[in-house]
Amino acid sequence: MPEFFNVLPPDKARELLLSRLTAVLPPETIPTEEALERVTAPPIYAPHALPAFRRSTMDGYAVRAADTYGASGSLPAFLQVIGEVPMGKPAAVELQTGQAALVHTGGMIPETADAVVQVEHTQTIINHQSSILTPPFEIEVMKAVAVGQNVLQVGEDVAESAEILPAGHWLRPQDLGGLLALGITEVAVSRRPRVAILATGDEVVPPSQWAGPGQIRDINSYTTAGLVRQAGGVPVLGGIIPDDFEALQTAARNALESTDMLVMSAGSSVSMRDMTVQVIERLGQPGVLLHGVATRPGKPTIVGAVGTKPVIGLPGNPVSAMVQFDMFGVPAIYHLQGMATMPRRGLVWARLRQNIASESGREDYIPARLEDGDEGLTAVPVFGKSNLIYTLVNADGLIKVPLNKAGLLAGEQVEVRLF
Amino acid sequence: MPEFFNVLPPDKARELLLSRLTAVLPPETIPTEEALERVTAPPIYAPHALPAFRRSTMDGYAVRAADTYGASGSLPAFLQVIGEVPMGKPAAVELQTGQAALVHTGGMIPETADAVVQVEHTQTIINHQSSILTPPFEIEVMKAVAVGQNVLQVGEDVAESAEILPAGHWLRPQDLGGLLALGITEVAVSRRPRVAILATGDEVVPPSQWAGPGQIRDINSYTTAGLVRQAGGVPVLGGIIPDDFEALQTAARNALESTDMLVMSAGSSVSMRDMTVQVIERLGQPGVLLHGVATRPGKPTIVGAVGTKPVIGLPGNPVSAMVQFDMFGVPAIYHLQGMATMPRRGLVWARLRQNIASESGREDYIPARLEDGDEGLTAVPVFGKSNLIYTLVNADGLIKVPLNKAGLLAGEQVEVRLF
Repeated sequence: MPEFFNVLPPDKARELLLSRLTAVLPPETIPTEEALERVTAPPIYAPHALPAFRRSTMDGYAVRAADTYGASGSLPAFLQVIGEVPMGKPAAVELQTGQAALVHTGGMIPETADAVVQVEHTQTIINHQSSILTPPFEIEVMKAVAVGQNVLQVGEDVAESAEILPAGHWLRPQDLGGLLALGITEVAVSRRPRVAILATGDEVVPPSQWAGPGQIRDINSYTTAGLVRQAGGVPVLGGIIPDDFEALQTAARNALESTDMLVMSAGSSVSMRDMTVQVIERLGQPGVLLHGVATRPGKPTIVGAVGTKPVIGLPGNPVSAMVQFDMFGVPAIYHLQGMATMPRRGLVWARLRQNIASESGREDYIPARLEDGDEGLTAVPVFGKSNLIYTLVNADGLIKVPLNKAGLLAGEQVEVRLF
Repeated sequence: MPEFFNVLPPDKARELLLSRLTAVLPPETIPTEEALERVTAPPIYAPHALPAFRRSTMDGYAVRAADTYGASGSLPAFLQVIGEVPMGKPAAVELQTGQAALVHTGGMIPETADAVVQVEHTQTIINHQSSILTPPFEIEVMKAVAVGQNVLQVGEDVAESAEILPAGHWLRPQDLGGLLALGITEVAVSRRPRVAILATGDEVVPPSQWAGPGQIRDINSYTTAGLVRQAGGVPVLGGIIPDDFEALQTAARNALESTDMLVMSAGSSVSMRDMTVQVIERLGQPGVLLHGVATRPGKPTIVGAVGTKPVIGLPGNPVSAMVQFDMFGVPAIYHLQGMATMPRRGLVWARLRQNIASESGREDYIPARLEDGDEGLTAVPVFGKSNLIYTLVNADGLIKVPLNKAGLLAGEQVEVRLF
């Protein structure tokens, strides 16, 4: 007998699951260099201002701006260059009225200067053959500068003690740069969630094995593992469990004990789904939160929790399994790392090649191939039963048909979620 | 003196670079399980059809379709269930006219059957209390099925010998699934490109070191390394080289010998840029291909090649360096792996919060923060000098102002490239 389906729309279902996952994994401290795509634990504050000293943004001359006021090509200001600020050294030069110091891009500005004149707006009075000028020498300034011009002020990038990254921030290359610029060479990040993955089914054999009549190779363990890795988790493959309640119960309990999340590729038959539901119920409270999500593919998905650990029973069909794991498993993995929202996913807009029928009250995800053309991007639906993994291999992304729409029309601009 | 700028628009500049990179790195064979986000070397063909046998897509009964023709709720067809096909086993049952076999989703279809009736469209004649039925028993079929209905045919997912993945394909989770479904447990992928990264500048110190007056910490090595990793390359950090021609020349030659690509964070001053140009010219042919790209930030980028190895001199400013490396270095890394086009990057559309001025004839990239609101996504430009890494830390992506536009207006829908 088919079990009672407690079917929710996907957004509500995801909210329900995430609301049960109150715990964030404990942090660990790692070198900032190795923290790419990890998630910050506590917020991080600037230990000092950046830049820590006033820097020139141009090759040119540090000056007192007032000495250049009114200067122009026809009426240049004459200044005496009395020294050079070497790169990487303090600006030891002290300027009096009418004096300037040679500075390079990124170099420190002398305390007595308040602006930089670009070298392009000056002329040296003696026509040097060499491009290397050794002070003292004189220059003509052909353009006035304002106070602060071509100067990075102390703290202009970030102020001392400012919060530079909030908790739960997914670290990108520029974030590592921002931390290292301040000398923050270690960072506390959430531990990577360990995700146990069990395959079930008497018909399922490992990929390395010959699949005889009636047998198929396990692929859901590996597609799930790939999605786990991409979300920052560590997949822990538990192998293939036979269609036996005790065996599945034992394997599930052991797997969950040593990990932070459990995924069971629940098989496709009603009896396998029933068995998965019972296994989850016996693992602990709250158990099954819902079975069934108002989407296609993927309706018979089981979403639950044991304590604050998410437990997900995926449909056996590979397309459903991937789409559903992406819908529930991936947000749960980010959530366990302390992220309030997921990193934004790539979306592209494309013109739909042909009509797509759907049912109102159900969210449909249609695999689609993207084609570049003279008139922009075209989305070509890849129709295929959800049993067919090559439907997703041949697709570049998924077109979402919203809950309240009965389909999409050829020629419409549709959003394709890269997958 | 500023050198002669050979400035190209970014697309032309990228084309010029990629046209010089004729070599693809040699392949290596690795376990398919570990091939996520690697790139296929030769095309891959299916060793056998998938599925390899006819499978049921439903829980129900394998039948001869003709036996159900005309069946309806008021006039059901009576069939004798003579056996069950166990999961994972050959379908040994042989059906005569009027006979059926119990099958489960994913189970094999007996040779003598040609369709499956869903269990929901049948009734067992004796009202069993248990949901486990043991043949023989009789059923009423209340809905006719056509030949092939609810049956996956042999090769419906992929035909024997079909090309399943082309050369130069970036492997996603579903691709690994597709390979493993066919028992392909090892795959030849392009070797990961090794990318040498040198920082230059007398003012630059390692991030772990105290930065005194006039000094700054190296961050370009690490932001570049992050982008290299995300593109599938292996960053090889060569440390900080002083502003000395011989030192830079020696370091560059050594770095390029043991790697596939060289990136020098060239410093910001004109003299440093000149030095980088000379170093690249002496490394070998063709040398510098162009210096200067018509973009902001990033104009003073040096793009070159030595043999078929790309060599890039980045501006010293961290924002320019990242944007430019993303524009030239990242495509080059994919290209070295044998990809004709890059994986599609995430783009989102958002309403621009305020006007952006630009110059026609130059492509501008404006860092922007994305804000979700009732009216959809808003892009808020993060203005900041290109010296300020926190401009990118505080941004979610880049707004592109096209070459031929003099700016963008508040309220316009703009494309934001996630970064």
